[in-house]
Amino acid sequence: MPFATPTLLLDQAKCVHNITRMAARAKHNNVLFRPHFKTHQSHEIGRWFKDVGVAQITVSSLEMAAYFVADGWKDITVAFPLNILEVGRIQQLAGQVDLNLVVGSLDNALATLHLLPRSVHLGIFIKIDNGYHRTGLDPADSDTIHQVIGAIAMHANLYFKGFLSHEGHAYGTTTLAEIEAIHQQRLANFGPLRERYQGPFPQLAFSVGDTPTCSRLEVLSGVDEIRPGNFVFYDLMQVDIGACGVDDIAVAVACPVVATHPERNEAILYGGGVHLSKEQGVLPDGSPYFGLVCLMTDDGWGAPLEGVYIRSLSQEHAIVSAGDKLHHFKPGAVVAVLPIHSCMTVDLYRNYRTTSGGVISRH
Amino acid sequence: MPFATPTLLLDQAKCVHNITRMAARAKHNNVLFRPHFKTHQSHEIGRWFKDVGVAQITVSSLEMAAYFVADGWKDITVAFPLNILEVGRIQQLAGQVDLNLVVGSLDNALATLHLLPRSVHLGIFIKIDNGYHRTGLDPADSDTIHQVIGAIAMHANLYFKGFLSHEGHAYGTTTLAEIEAIHQQRLANFGPLRERYQGPFPQLAFSVGDTPTCSRLEVLSGVDEIRPGNFVFYDLMQVDIGACGVDDIAVAVACPVVATHPERNEAILYGGGVHLSKEQGVLPDGSPYFGLVCLMTDDGWGAPLEGVYIRSLSQEHAIVSAGDKLHHFKPGAVVAVLPIHSCMTVDLYRNYRTTSGGVISRH
Repeated sequence: MPFATPTLLLDQAKCVHNITRMAARAKHNNVLFRPHFKTHQSHEIGRWFKDVGVAQITVSSLEMAAYFVADGWKDITVAFPLNILEVGRIQQLAGQVDLNLVVGSLDNALATLHLLPRSVHLGIFIKIDNGYHRTGLDPADSDTIHQVIGAIAMHANLYFKGFLSHEGHAYGTTTLAEIEAIHQQRLANFGPLRERYQGPFPQLAFSVGDTPTCSRLEVLSGVDEIRPGNFVFYDLMQVDIGACGVDDIAVAVACPVVATHPERNEAILYGGGVHLSKEQGVLPDGSPYFGLVCLMTDDGWGAPLEGVYIRSLSQEHAIVSAGDKLHHFKPGAVVAVLPIHSCMTVDLYRNYRTTSGGVISRH
Repeated sequence: MPFATPTLLLDQAKCVHNITRMAARAKHNNVLFRPHFKTHQSHEIGRWFKDVGVAQITVSSLEMAAYFVADGWKDITVAFPLNILEVGRIQQLAGQVDLNLVVGSLDNALATLHLLPRSVHLGIFIKIDNGYHRTGLDPADSDTIHQVIGAIAMHANLYFKGFLSHEGHAYGTTTLAEIEAIHQQRLANFGPLRERYQGPFPQLAFSVGDTPTCSRLEVLSGVDEIRPGNFVFYDLMQVDIGACGVDDIAVAVACPVVATHPERNEAILYGGGVHLSKEQGVLPDGSPYFGLVCLMTDDGWGAPLEGVYIRSLSQEHAIVSAGDKLHHFKPGAVVAVLPIHSCMTVDLYRNYRTTSGGVISRH
């Protein structure tokens, strides 16, 4: 029985459309498209990127890098602060492909770079904090930046690739003006760095990573490379940001209906925190929610049922607040749940089931 | 290199202590101990329960039931509303072991019971809603309850096992008085049901399930069976409830430190939402947090560092607010993170690594 238990659905046409559109935007802006593969983590979906000319990718762990090396990818950036405890894996991968690592703080650079293997070449990006305050060097702190570049230059096996940022604060925006302000801030930060270092490092790249700015800004000036990841599937968080329409969301979770409670207009789905993740969205009234619900169609799923949302998740149960739509919920029926954050949801599965009935495996 | 990447740690001594204590409480109260295995989902940990005399268990899916049947368990309750889409698996399992299913609403019962296979015997519990309002029948609605019992009695292959409840609202409590009130409410609800149905169904069982009441109440009067699950590992949510001490928490995630930012007393760990889950706790000031941080010791981990907590999680990063303890965080070091909700965290791993160096597999 298909969908007898919670099942991750993928609409391949929507996914390929998302990929094609972002590739076209990169080309139009004359920037390198180095997509982040942490969201999909699938050989087969990776090949859909190859089909539009992508040859360089981003991942967030060395394990993920190894998975994509196994499918023939040859140029990979691990966009995560260099973890020296994995030096063995770094050595192994850098012997096979062009590998770029990232240093995110002064101590991250000073405690690790001198321990990297001398037998292989490694590209090093310096992470810049353009306002998210997760990690990265302060772009105004030129002494520290210079010190880190010096630590890279000291080792013949390392070469300085450029500056990389991730504007995670773009995920908290809702207006185009906020997105534009974030982009202007990073350009203001990158300008002096480019002026200072472009001469000694002519190949210097400025790389940016977030899905919201890459999706909302048609003109991506002042950068050399984009690394969006989430856009491959999008999700409700990106709809709220304005980065996509709800029709662009390419994944959903098929969940059986098991019970209803008409006295409170609620339905119970087989589909809990272990199937959807506990990532929360925020309703207009400020209360949290965990996904929207759509009816299944012959070729996928329809628009979200208006006024219907998941109000609570246990390990295996979802409670749906169904408003005046409870008649759509009958035990034995199956509905599709759109995720708040697709990266977290798809990570809970080993396979995608496509809306045309195929199975695509994940890392 | 052990712990080069985020690793799920298990302190076997603490876990066995939690099991032994709960088994003793059940015995002292003369109630059947039917532990919920959804938390650990491990054959080997299941055998630690066999060691204290457990022969009957609870799970939350048929797939989990099949996993434990494969290790010799013979009497299993699936504490989730009957999902008729899995009728094939129900038939298969009920042919092998004593299987009990649960109906959680009138439509859940009426749409499913008549479709269950006639060739096997199945026990049916009726779920009662004692105030959580997830699912279950209203204990005061005796007409509906009678209707559901009638639907069970109509089929020779089904036998009515009793009434089952899960007081999920106990997870929102902080005082013993609240826990006692929840227990008194369920006794008040169960009393008339016992009076009405004990005669025609002499084997009738009243089964309750939550870790907070089972942990906090030494005297568990008026029930026949307890089904706690989370207590096997406990977690920070249970500490806040008062169900355990922080020393009782039997699992943690070992996370490499990769960077620090002294200008804001923060450290970055390799360990994000895909390693810890996005389950949130609440700090005294009302803001969310995602775990507490301990130093590793020779035989496990120490007490949580005072004033230190995870303030934010990305897919792979944790941001630690380290207060005046930042000197404990150096790139290349490893720390242990205590989970907010162990059921959600351990579900992200295929193996436990014990603090004595062993590996225990999970479903």
